[in-house]
Amino acid sequence: MGQAQIIGIVGGVGPHAGLDLSRKVLEQTRATGDQEHLNMVLLSWPRDVPDRTAFLLGRSTEDPVPGMVRCVQALELVGATVASIACNTAHAPRLFSRLIASLQSSGNRIGVINMIQEVALFIRCNFPDVRRVGVLATDGTVTTNAYGEVLARENLTCIYPDAQIQRELVHTAIYDRSYGIKAVSSPVSERARACVLAAATHLLIDKGADVVVLGCTELPLAISERRLQGKPVIDASMVLARALVASVEPEKLKPIDFGGP
Amino acid sequence: MGQAQIIGIVGGVGPHAGLDLSRKVLEQTRATGDQEHLNMVLLSWPRDVPDRTAFLLGRSTEDPVPGMVRCVQALELVGATVASIACNTAHAPRLFSRLIASLQSSGNRIGVINMIQEVALFIRCNFPDVRRVGVLATDGTVTTNAYGEVLARENLTCIYPDAQIQRELVHTAIYDRSYGIKAVSSPVSERARACVLAAATHLLIDKGADVVVLGCTELPLAISERRLQGKPVIDASMVLARALVASVEPEKLKPIDFGGP
Repeated sequence: MGQAQIIGIVGGVGPHAGLDLSRKVLEQTRATGDQEHLNMVLLSWPRDVPDRTAFLLGRSTEDPVPGMVRCVQALELVGATVASIACNTAHAPRLFSRLIASLQSSGNRIGVINMIQEVALFIRCNFPDVRRVGVLATDGTVTTNAYGEVLARENLTCIYPDAQIQRELVHTAIYDRSYGIKAVSSPVSERARACVLAAATHLLIDKGADVVVLGCTELPLAISERRLQGKPVIDASMVLARALVASVEPEKLKPIDFGGP
Repeated sequence: MGQAQIIGIVGGVGPHAGLDLSRKVLEQTRATGDQEHLNMVLLSWPRDVPDRTAFLLGRSTEDPVPGMVRCVQALELVGATVASIACNTAHAPRLFSRLIASLQSSGNRIGVINMIQEVALFIRCNFPDVRRVGVLATDGTVTTNAYGEVLARENLTCIYPDAQIQRELVHTAIYDRSYGIKAVSSPVSERARACVLAAATHLLIDKGADVVVLGCTELPLAISERRLQGKPVIDASMVLARALVASVEPEKLKPIDFGGP
């Protein structure tokens, strides 16, 4: 008791996405009772972490990095032994590298798992024949090509939706103030779900992707299918949840459920 | 930024119940975007907080209070301004009063909201004609009569299921290692849900309860209905979530949804 390692999650980005990642940590853990689950801390401080996409695209001057640094430091303060950020866009190099540099210069020792690197490794290990990886993500993630460079290191080609699809289906599904997932999460609106499904079909059929990555943590709130058009759907939050479990207690990690043929 | 009050939740008791309470805090908050949500910390440390019922009934000597004290202290350490415990049984006087005393003697200043008191006030304010309150809860909550004394102060009569129903339907729905909610939460098993529904019907029909309280934070994972047999279902987690929102930013609290006639 009291010696267990603690998983740290920077949530609030958005708040429902943080809970979704936390739930996936539980789902990916072998446990048949409360005390068999892993210790975890979720910090959901949306007011301290301004929108990442708005900052990356120059639509806002509010920098999300200082708030993310404070969150990770708070996780370390309460004893978390590994940290993660429940937001793909936060992993854009212009944000993530500054986060890591700031933590290092402050003398923080907690490790931060990189969700996008984990997704690339997950595809390489579990779908070795895949070459073309379709990515559904925020404008911030797409514009900074946060997935492209990391996937290229694993010899994978990153494919984003065409600009009009990105603008009219993906961005609106996440951000629209009336029906977007950040506004309406529990449950997600039918319209947002339809937008995401159409964009996934565009990547898999029109653009020839071998898999589609839900590369924004809001998207799995709308899409729980493990396959679409007969091809795998990779939920980046689920991959991150597995990496968190593996990092503190690998023998607790459940086998992967690929959801059938 | 950075000055916002922070809601603290002791989760992990059980882990899914802690997430459920956190989700209800979001659901009860007026917000149309990430940054409009309240700041929140969820500590899910199931390994530090042994089972409350097992301790109360003398089936285990592992005291859950020291772990709960450490959790509340950790919440205060990261800046939470109000704390709550996502477990009804933890509010049994033999546990809760020792938790509060321990925090006071340690010089902790954070307030801990009492879920059971909030449920009693909620019924008194919103259902003034109700007299007989049926309570579905763990054996620990029932045996220590954690609800009875608090409800009596509001001139409400607490009604528990008959012993056989409690033993064969309620306790098993929560704790059974093959189909109970603590073992199978996402989703809950059909069998567990059927047990809880039958026990609720027993309280409302056989025992003449005017409302039924889901007085264990696992139970709302099985039952989302707001009414059963035409009578209100009071979800103690939802009541606690509303009290948390009201405590830090009352103007953010959504109107109550009573779920129709």
